[in-house]
Amino acid sequence: MWRVGIDVGGTFIKAGLVNASCEIVSRAIVPFPAGTPEQIACTVADAAREVLRAAAVDERDVSHLGMVVPGSIDAAGETVIDAHNLGFHDVPFRTLVARQFPTIPVSMANDAQGAALAELQIGALEGCKTAVLLTLGTGLGAAVVLNGRLFAGGTGQGVELGHMLLVHDGEPCTCGNKGCAEAYCSASALLREARRVAANAPDSLLARCFAGVAAADDAPDARLVIDCVRAGDSTAQAVFAAYIHRLSALCASVFNIFDPEVIAIGGGLCAAGDLLFEPLRAQTSQQCFFRTHGALVPAAAGNSAGILGAALLGGQCCA
Amino acid sequence: MWRVGIDVGGTFIKAGLVNASCEIVSRAIVPFPAGTPEQIACTVADAAREVLRAAAVDERDVSHLGMVVPGSIDAAGETVIDAHNLGFHDVPFRTLVARQFPTIPVSMANDAQGAALAELQIGALEGCKTAVLLTLGTGLGAAVVLNGRLFAGGTGQGVELGHMLLVHDGEPCTCGNKGCAEAYCSASALLREARRVAANAPDSLLARCFAGVAAADDAPDARLVIDCVRAGDSTAQAVFAAYIHRLSALCASVFNIFDPEVIAIGGGLCAAGDLLFEPLRAQTSQQCFFRTHGALVPAAAGNSAGILGAALLGGQCCA
Repeated sequence: MWRVGIDVGGTFIKAGLVNASCEIVSRAIVPFPAGTPEQIACTVADAAREVLRAAAVDERDVSHLGMVVPGSIDAAGETVIDAHNLGFHDVPFRTLVARQFPTIPVSMANDAQGAALAELQIGALEGCKTAVLLTLGTGLGAAVVLNGRLFAGGTGQGVELGHMLLVHDGEPCTCGNKGCAEAYCSASALLREARRVAANAPDSLLARCFAGVAAADDAPDARLVIDCVRAGDSTAQAVFAAYIHRLSALCASVFNIFDPEVIAIGGGLCAAGDLLFEPLRAQTSQQCFFRTHGALVPAAAGNSAGILGAALLGGQCCA
Repeated sequence: MWRVGIDVGGTFIKAGLVNASCEIVSRAIVPFPAGTPEQIACTVADAAREVLRAAAVDERDVSHLGMVVPGSIDAAGETVIDAHNLGFHDVPFRTLVARQFPTIPVSMANDAQGAALAELQIGALEGCKTAVLLTLGTGLGAAVVLNGRLFAGGTGQGVELGHMLLVHDGEPCTCGNKGCAEAYCSASALLREARRVAANAPDSLLARCFAGVAAADDAPDARLVIDCVRAGDSTAQAVFAAYIHRLSALCASVFNIFDPEVIAIGGGLCAAGDLLFEPLRAQTSQQCFFRTHGALVPAAAGNSAGILGAALLGGQCCA
């Protein structure tokens, strides 16, 4: 049997068809559309059908469709309570999508919880008793593993490390507060700062890359900053250094809070590799209260974590 | 049999003799002395002997002597790894004190862990599965209850919520970082801000109270600020409002991290009662990611939490 995993993000909706060996055999990616939750559910359903069509798999051969969403989900997995980056508040999104697939069981969870499920099963958190996954995307997702299992929060509302205050009264956050970790450490936050700095350095490679993306009528990705860092652009290097400074403070806080064996970092920025992780590890160690701390590693499932985690929601899919 | 509990704080050492009903029948309080760890161990031992003498109890009738210390303790309970407010680093403090009492089992733990033990048994956290205790003193102690038990950190190093960053790059903290929660939310932080503001408002009641304490060659207590707030001093009110603003951000972060059933707040400042808790609850709710959250209450064991928790370290003492 096949599973479909769908990662509903604030920028893109990514769908994947997953086989019994936990491999993604076909993918679709579509921009997150403007529209009502009903219309967005249709886009999600279209993406799911596209990955089935691409692999010539019939809907009747799908045992489960899972979705992960960047926000808080009710304990029943029915309703998106708040997903600020999607504009979803009290949206019964599971049902909206399930209506499109009368024969397939549909489930829904927080995106970071799904990604952590993937990392626990086949990735960077395998074998961990206490671990944290931070996902740097449009927002900052987080999942916490305690005693080898996902921690759902004391009253079942989830874990929102992205909305820990990091610079209280600082940058506005999508949640309405000022200074949340998400407002400094998400990939969007890196892009925001890069734009700000580039505006004052129009001759920099960074500014020229932004202009190029705009001319192509495309949306820039935070990896644009990494590319400019690699190319030696000092403007981009300063932006990236400031970003790592904030992210290291978040990692130090997380080590001080949970004393985890591993913090894994997911999201497209991980493609930066040592450029990100070497200074991040050094600065995190400097700021950590404890003299020794657990590992700080890239998530292993990469951009597929959301899709795989979503597919895994229906239970064990790996051989 | 009797137990002795000792709360070794950066400002005072408090000792208590505890009976089988978990009541403190005699107390001693001495300033934390300057000196070597050996000399400080002697002061601790003197305080223990004083509470025995006051109740005419013989050392041979003491089943256990427990100590709590504001800092990180090794997993064996032998060594204070770092207690910045005591100036202790790698100090085998349990042994130093135990040498003074050859016939009494001596144990040692982090002060907030001890206080949480007291609150779990007879206080504000009774019956909780997920809860957090924040102790506002010279430093900011914290203990986390998960699944009804104290959480010792993923690798056993403890839980240092006081060293979560709250205003990254902000006020210097005793740990060497800038902007830790402790640097804004401890009672010492309130005193520090009160002094700063009073220096610029010499005619305020707050400034005059500081001068009075100094003239009496005494050390001011953060409750001085509360007294001035109650007396209607606008300078003190502004200082206290700013303090509550930061503390509410910390509480909101803690709700976002653990989604606990209860956050209990301990330390002398709790004497402020509704003056503290009413605005604190309102501002915490405003900043919390979740629309509903657990209770935010004063710790019940009050100033005795450290002594009781220390006494409880040796096992159940309550009938």
